Amino acid sequence: MSQHVVIIGAVALGPKAACRLKRVQPDARVTMIDAQKIISYGGCGIPYLVSGDVSDPKQLRTTSFHALRDEAFFKQAKGVDVLSETTVLKIDRKKKTVLVQEKNAEPREISYDKLVLATGSRPRTLPIPGVDLPGCLPVSTMTDAMTIRDMVTKGAVSKAVIVGAGFIGLEMAEALSDMWGIETSVIEVADQVLPGVVSKNIAHMAQQHLKDKEVTLCLAEMVTAIEGEGKVQRVITTKRTIEADLVILAAGVLPNSELAKDAGLTVSSSTGGIMVNKTMQTSDPNIYSGGDCVAIENLVTGKPGLFPLGSMANRQGRVIGTNLAGGRDTFPGAVGSLSIKIFDMGVAGTGLTLKRAQTEGFDAISAQVIQFDHAHFYPEKTLISLELVVEKGTGRVLGIQGISENLEGLAARIDAVAAILKYKPTVQDISNLELAYSPPFSAAMDVLNAVANVADNILGGRNRPISSSEFAALWENRKSNNLIVLDCRDRDNAEKFLAKHPDFWMNIPSETVQEHVDQVPKDKQVVLLCNTGGRSYEAQIKLDKAGVTNTVNLQGGWGNLRIWGLDPTTEE
Amino acid sequence: MSQHVVIIGAVALGPKAACRLKRVQPDARVTMIDAQKIISYGGCGIPYLVSGDVSDPKQLRTTSFHALRDEAFFKQAKGVDVLSETTVLKIDRKKKTVLVQEKNAEPREISYDKLVLATGSRPRTLPIPGVDLPGCLPVSTMTDAMTIRDMVTKGAVSKAVIVGAGFIGLEMAEALSDMWGIETSVIEVADQVLPGVVSKNIAHMAQQHLKDKEVTLCLAEMVTAIEGEGKVQRVITTKRTIEADLVILAAGVLPNSELAKDAGLTVSSSTGGIMVNKTMQTSDPNIYSGGDCVAIENLVTGKPGLFPLGSMANRQGRVIGTNLAGGRDTFPGAVGSLSIKIFDMGVAGTGLTLKRAQTEGFDAISAQVIQFDHAHFYPEKTLISLELVVEKGTGRVLGIQGISENLEGLAARIDAVAAILKYKPTVQDISNLELAYSPPFSAAMDVLNAVANVADNILGGRNRPISSSEFAALWENRKSNNLIVLDCRDRDNAEKFLAKHPDFWMNIPSETVQEHVDQVPKDKQVVLLCNTGGRSYEAQIKLDKAGVTNTVNLQGGWGNLRIWGLDPTTEE
Repeated sequence: MSQHVVIIGAVALGPKAACRLKRVQPDARVTMIDAQKIISYGGCGIPYLVSGDVSDPKQLRTTSFHALRDEAFFKQAKGVDVLSETTVLKIDRKKKTVLVQEKNAEPREISYDKLVLATGSRPRTLPIPGVDLPGCLPVSTMTDAMTIRDMVTKGAVSKAVIVGAGFIGLEMAEALSDMWGIETSVIEVADQVLPGVVSKNIAHMAQQHLKDKEVTLCLAEMVTAIEGEGKVQRVITTKRTIEADLVILAAGVLPNSELAKDAGLTVSSSTGGIMVNKTMQTSDPNIYSGGDCVAIENLVTGKPGLFPLGSMANRQGRVIGTNLAGGRDTFPGAVGSLSIKIFDMGVAGTGLTLKRAQTEGFDAISAQVIQFDHAHFYPEKTLISLELVVEKGTGRVLGIQGISENLEGLAARIDAVAAILKYKPTVQDISNLELAYSPPFSAAMDVLNAVANVADNILGGRNRPISSSEFAALWENRKSNNLIVLDCRDRDNAEKFLAKHPDFWMNIPSETVQEHVDQVPKDKQVVLLCNTGGRSYEAQIKLDKAGVTNTVNLQGGWGNLRIWGLDPTTEE
Repeated sequence: MSQHVVIIGAVALGPKAACRLKRVQPDARVTMIDAQKIISYGGCGIPYLVSGDVSDPKQLRTTSFHALRDEAFFKQAKGVDVLSETTVLKIDRKKKTVLVQEKNAEPREISYDKLVLATGSRPRTLPIPGVDLPGCLPVSTMTDAMTIRDMVTKGAVSKAVIVGAGFIGLEMAEALSDMWGIETSVIEVADQVLPGVVSKNIAHMAQQHLKDKEVTLCLAEMVTAIEGEGKVQRVITTKRTIEADLVILAAGVLPNSELAKDAGLTVSSSTGGIMVNKTMQTSDPNIYSGGDCVAIENLVTGKPGLFPLGSMANRQGRVIGTNLAGGRDTFPGAVGSLSIKIFDMGVAGTGLTLKRAQTEGFDAISAQVIQFDHAHFYPEKTLISLELVVEKGTGRVLGIQGISENLEGLAARIDAVAAILKYKPTVQDISNLELAYSPPFSAAMDVLNAVANVADNILGGRNRPISSSEFAALWENRKSNNLIVLDCRDRDNAEKFLAKHPDFWMNIPSETVQEHVDQVPKDKQVVLLCNTGGRSYEAQIKLDKAGVTNTVNLQGGWGNLRIWGLDPTTEE
């Protein structure tokens, strides 16, 4: 007799596992259970549903050929039984049953041969008074999304506050501000947006862009209360009070692992995710799990981690489907690739940030470069700013992050590194990484190769770097820091800066620096600057050779600094 | 005393090696020799110079900060001596000298401690009468480019013939046809454009696009003579005579390895390239070489190969520079990543094509998929068509090629595979490859993951594929081939096809095929078709289960077929 597979959860991983199983083993009997009525939807599309980019909520529930993925579709097209609006109360591993509670019915037991836990995640709740007020909600379900969209389209929202500047928070900020013209503030407890995802330096570039788009950012700030009469009216933080008709809670997600834990399955103590092996089996060989509710190996740190992404769920679901059918597919783990569009900019990364690498115990540095995406002589081109995180000594590459208006061009570089991160590549592997080259696609020495070359030069002691953030801190107190900027560009580039800050700015083009070594002050902190960090690096080498070593090189030069948001020619 | 390094060749690798050496070892004395006056230029930009995309030839010779890279620049900014318009006649490895012939001077000897051969490549000449006529030339130097551009801007060219449909040939076809409105024909001895670079199937998609752009393609055709009175007037091929004011020879390049060979260095017999080890050293430890003139390991086949690309030259130049300075950097070899923009389409690939893989002795198959670059619900999206080449048995990935209007999105997928190809990945590695996901960047199950999944299904015997090219051949003689197309889409998609070809087209949506198994003819060749190849794959599984196995599945479905250029609703 054919096996019966029960799948708990029918959003992303559940349906994928079910359909894959049925394709490999058409005889299998599959029952998929979900507490909600709406199943099998693209949760990652919710911000775009709120913005109106996705006009009809059904678009998140249809196949690419416009079939609605409801219960009838799964029965007819896929041969999968669905029990929607049904809660699983308990798993009995000995009896191999689940106790389910259907709508308007008595609880009943369902037997399984194999069980799949696709229970997903839930928004992290905040212990703040007032979170239950109407108008304060997360954006984790289609219902949430439609509630917000209804409020917005009815004109009921003129001011919104978003709690959390992670992916969902920033996507929602764009959705509300850009598409609906709502005055939007984002409150984040960390001192940067996208904490843990990009460095402070890249985050600052994104922050500058958000400010340009009139999103108010309140960083290093905590919400202490949400207040209002019968509905949300204001948000109280550790620093201020902000009026709001809508408060969106986007402080991350937590894995739904309680059912697994109650059944005695192993759950990761560090992350709360259900533990699975490489075949996506839990500690019970008859039970598989994947998606937002599991902890899988972070292939850079070797530790269990949470990777709550639809892309993970889909790929893991396929592996589970294959294995349910008697195959032996594996999911090796994850490196943590991420991307987000913020208005006109893309931010993406993979692996560890510098800070995270250091927290994990790596003796790490980062290299930063800004360069055009295409050959510099090619007429159409856009800047890409990259930061490569590298372990000292071994030269092992631990991660990369970047920001650019060329979203796909940025993704090309990040994805190439994501692909090899599990093989523990070194800086040399990235220096020689063979991107598909021709002038409309990349540069002969691509920005990705270049950032590895810079890392190599930093590791080799030839390049003493300083980041835009570090420079900004020095510049703010330039007098007490005894600072001078040595501008290594041509006179016409340096002119405006010299005029504005004659005491803190000097100009010697890199090509002639060896002839003007005497002019370089030996008693000051000298920051070398050019447009990208390349010419100033050459100047540093020449000065070092001449015995002048009190210099640091501004990584990504004026190119990065401008995006970062510090313009010495306009500020006072 | 500091060492003296002599570098023969000053276009791409030479300058890179020289500058890197001087940065790592500023004391080194470097002499760079070139036969031409114009040095250090971006040769890959030549087609864009002809088109006018690059307006000023100096743009190919300037740094990103607009400094002209001439002899004076190398002396002043880089500390590198340049002897231009100087030919190297001979290398004496015992004496460690090169015999040089400067302009208007007697030959003289120059001593070296280390020597670098950066002699590059030259266009392959064709043994055709008339190739010496004025108006017939290659596009390998700045002089060639300016000659062509002068002819074109003066209005002296109304009809052009390009011999060779490789990268340069097609880039030139676009340059002449698109920017200058010249009636352009491309003659190619192979039966497809980009032979060796993409499959016939993807080539056909590019061919269709070239035809839409009114470029005439003459495939499987050879030029037998070029004729004219005092200048080019016509081209005679094995099939026709074409009038032409301009003939561009773009039949590939050959490595300039004669100097090395004469000096007794090892040269690859299969490729003609100078042999180097991983540190880019030739068979003489005091002589390095890289760029177009060397053979390096193809990391997929393990054999020596030629990779004449500016990107290779730049990366290898850096390795050589480091090693000249006493370091020990390595260049591991190449996987053969390539890209080209053809009007509005991008074509890119890495590793082996199916045909090349089979020629190399691999028992290989290919899988094809067409899918949107972004989440299918995201409003902005473009199709990407990919072909993954895989070894049977091992499931090892040997290469990937693709075509799309989204150039950078295509590059992102190709580059990710290029990055891991040297690690000998399997289909599973690509199925789980972790692209940076969010709806504006990719799909949760990205087209790259999808093409690996299809390959897995083909290898597992669940998907019996047929390509667009194979289908077109069957369709052409559909009656004698006893063919019927089973359209697995919804009625409204299939309608037009049914109406036009009632005898050869039938419609059963995939979701209901199990209920209509009896309608499927058992005595015909049945081709299953949907929009992408996904629904038809599900239909194939259902039919197999019902015992109906006389089916093949059109890979990429109607999506690929349309780009391929076969539209059954319009053809007779």
